[in-house]
Amino acid sequence: MEERETIVALATPPGVSALAVIRISGKQAKQIVKKSIKEKEKFEKEKERILGIYGIIDEKGEEIDKVTTIKYLAPKSYTGEEMVEIICHGGIFTINRIVEEIIKNGARCAEKGEFTKRAFLNKKIDIIEAEAINCLINSRNEKESRNALKKINGEHKKVIEKWKNEIIKIIAEVETEIEFGEEIEIENEKEQLKNLEEIEREIDKEIKKRERNQRIEDGIEIIIAGPVNAGKSTLFNKILGFERSITSKHEGTTRDTVSENVIFYGKQIKITDTAGIRKTNNEIEIEGIKRTKKEIEKGNIVIWVTSADEKMSDEERRELININRKIVVINKSDKEIKEKEKEADIGKIQNEYVKISLKEEKSEDVVIKKIKEEIEKILEQYEFTDVVQTKRQDLIIREIKSEIGKVKKHWETKEIASISLNKIIEYFEECLGKIDKEEIYNKVFETFCIGK
Amino acid sequence: MEERETIVALATPPGVSALAVIRISGKQAKQIVKKSIKEKEKFEKEKERILGIYGIIDEKGEEIDKVTTIKYLAPKSYTGEEMVEIICHGGIFTINRIVEEIIKNGARCAEKGEFTKRAFLNKKIDIIEAEAINCLINSRNEKESRNALKKINGEHKKVIEKWKNEIIKIIAEVETEIEFGEEIEIENEKEQLKNLEEIEREIDKEIKKRERNQRIEDGIEIIIAGPVNAGKSTLFNKILGFERSITSKHEGTTRDTVSENVIFYGKQIKITDTAGIRKTNNEIEIEGIKRTKKEIEKGNIVIWVTSADEKMSDEERRELININRKIVVINKSDKEIKEKEKEADIGKIQNEYVKISLKEEKSEDVVIKKIKEEIEKILEQYEFTDVVQTKRQDLIIREIKSEIGKVKKHWETKEIASISLNKIIEYFEECLGKIDKEEIYNKVFETFCIGK
Repeated sequence: MEERETIVALATPPGVSALAVIRISGKQAKQIVKKSIKEKEKFEKEKERILGIYGIIDEKGEEIDKVTTIKYLAPKSYTGEEMVEIICHGGIFTINRIVEEIIKNGARCAEKGEFTKRAFLNKKIDIIEAEAINCLINSRNEKESRNALKKINGEHKKVIEKWKNEIIKIIAEVETEIEFGEEIEIENEKEQLKNLEEIEREIDKEIKKRERNQRIEDGIEIIIAGPVNAGKSTLFNKILGFERSITSKHEGTTRDTVSENVIFYGKQIKITDTAGIRKTNNEIEIEGIKRTKKEIEKGNIVIWVTSADEKMSDEERRELININRKIVVINKSDKEIKEKEKEADIGKIQNEYVKISLKEEKSEDVVIKKIKEEIEKILEQYEFTDVVQTKRQDLIIREIKSEIGKVKKHWETKEIASISLNKIIEYFEECLGKIDKEEIYNKVFETFCIGK
Repeated sequence: MEERETIVALATPPGVSALAVIRISGKQAKQIVKKSIKEKEKFEKEKERILGIYGIIDEKGEEIDKVTTIKYLAPKSYTGEEMVEIICHGGIFTINRIVEEIIKNGARCAEKGEFTKRAFLNKKIDIIEAEAINCLINSRNEKESRNALKKINGEHKKVIEKWKNEIIKIIAEVETEIEFGEEIEIENEKEQLKNLEEIEREIDKEIKKRERNQRIEDGIEIIIAGPVNAGKSTLFNKILGFERSITSKHEGTTRDTVSENVIFYGKQIKITDTAGIRKTNNEIEIEGIKRTKKEIEKGNIVIWVTSADEKMSDEERRELININRKIVVINKSDKEIKEKEKEADIGKIQNEYVKISLKEEKSEDVVIKKIKEEIEKILEQYEFTDVVQTKRQDLIIREIKSEIGKVKKHWETKEIASISLNKIIEYFEECLGKIDKEEIYNKVFETFCIGK
């Protein structure tokens, strides 16, 4: 094991909270942390995996915080190296001060996913397990989370091993034939081809499942769109108010679209309020509407809010027809002036719609119920995979499928088939991170958060 | 100790990260967590303050996450009750699932500050220490943080004790005089009055320090203001880009002002971009400008961005004169057309200003340097207090001051002076949370975050 620098990072999200966890990993972890510990002797003697309470001090001896620490001895740690975890008070200022001190003492800031990368390099986990940890952290629904846990628990290993062993058996047969010519039994050869096709079928299934899962893993998005002044923002705020567990806020690239991440019936969902669609010559507005249309294309569920007291414009009709999964909401249904007309217009495009008046309390409930139904429909399509949950794995499995195709195509020319069969074995190894492809593996860890 | 319900809360900020800590406190903490632990027997036997690795399962036995847990036995825990901390993977979905399970098992969601409240009720800490924990978490600079730590380490106790003992001595003298009449020695009485005035002086100092600190503790704010099209938003984005440790985002009440919290030279600072100021009849714009003016009034530092190629309007002149702590930035100084004129106009109001052209790279550096200087000036005014760091404490100390005034005023009528002196003792007790004022103490914990 080559000696690596000692790294430090905040392992919990930045922000004000009760607690925060700072992780330090590397051969010098203990020594580096000790420099900032007030009760050095006690810390030195503390056993691994036992909580100790200490003062963290700066170089002048000034106390920064009272913390608890946990020591881990190599290789019995997450990274496989010596590690220390500092559980400190969750103030942004305090966290920054402590990390600063640890860096002054000789550690450096960890890169994204560097802790997990070290766990991989130290052979604590294979690359699929590393990827699964990231999938678990980023999972937005129960099925996705369980799918990741299956891999963290190593269930993929058996499947890949099984496939690999089958291919190895076929290679053995093929190479025997190459060596001894056509003396080999036809029956045996048919059997091998059948086995190969069985693996191909299983791999095909994986690819199809992954395709369906992909869209759900990307995150369900709800877009609120429709003509101007139809009550989109009112509905947006009402929906957000209903579910108070807002987890993060982010403004769109422009002020024209505003998004919030909400936990909606236990699932994290991004909900976006867009600029109203209308005919305009104003340049800025045109830009806003362009963005709205882009959002609509991206969205899994579009809530189309339209007003009962406005006629349907050609613009609106055109948009509405093009939207795939939509919930149509006729707002201001208290104003009956053009209600019937609007209903008739909508009816030509979509059988189902809800009529509400957002002025009334709890009027959003019926929309929320519809959203729930749509989400359930989307989630039902999620399937547990045996192996593939990331793009990297998906690409490799497709390569394997393509090589299987080549094997089948060149079945009669065993020398060529053999090359592809050996490539398949390599791909399986790569899938598990067992062959030297540093650049590819590095990319895996770049998608992690810092501190993981 | 009355038996309280077992409570659960996320102790780290919501968001996606490597780790999250979930806290459970109460007599049933261990039993409740055990229900969701896969390896029940091992968990049962695990000693306190030792890390154990476990699977967390739902009621169907389905694994939700692999976690580490730490058990704490009462009274050797933060709250003084039985506690369990679960360190889980930091995914929003995973966290929610685990908290849900713990609630299903019999815990309830903790209220804001409820863990610390229990620590207080179980006499692990006094109320000033509880408040200091919150001050520490929310501190935005080193001095504030150290001021809080002094209280967490109990330094306030000595001072209050000293004051209290002095008052008790005076009470003894006064009550002797009430009982035995004017037989008491005049010399002794003068001495007591001198002591009382000494306490008064010390308390006065505390109040003054607190007043200065208050504004800094409220958080330093930077407001970017100025006429329209002067480059305010460009400067805003350039400043944010310079310091990448953005900790949170929040949109203003309207889309007219956009704020970001940044860690700027180690201090958390809110920086706000405002709508441009100009004469207008447009109602929405007038509203925006009103808000801008309100922001300017609030801001500790106003960066006034003005354009070299525009004449100074009366509106701008009026605003500029009214701003207290300002950094004047003349942008577009590449366009020399009206530059000299603008400089002359500015010069009439403010000696110092910086001339930049935001089109040029790193042009913001000189503004950032100015900001740093202003922040340092503000922070230099922060002073360490012996006791007072919160509004509650401030109010009590002012009551004490007022009662001391009454004692002095009625010094000749010892019966009346005695009442005030006894009130002072009560206020000291209240300051430490030693007398029954549930409602007042509850308010303290309402300002905490959930999980603390």
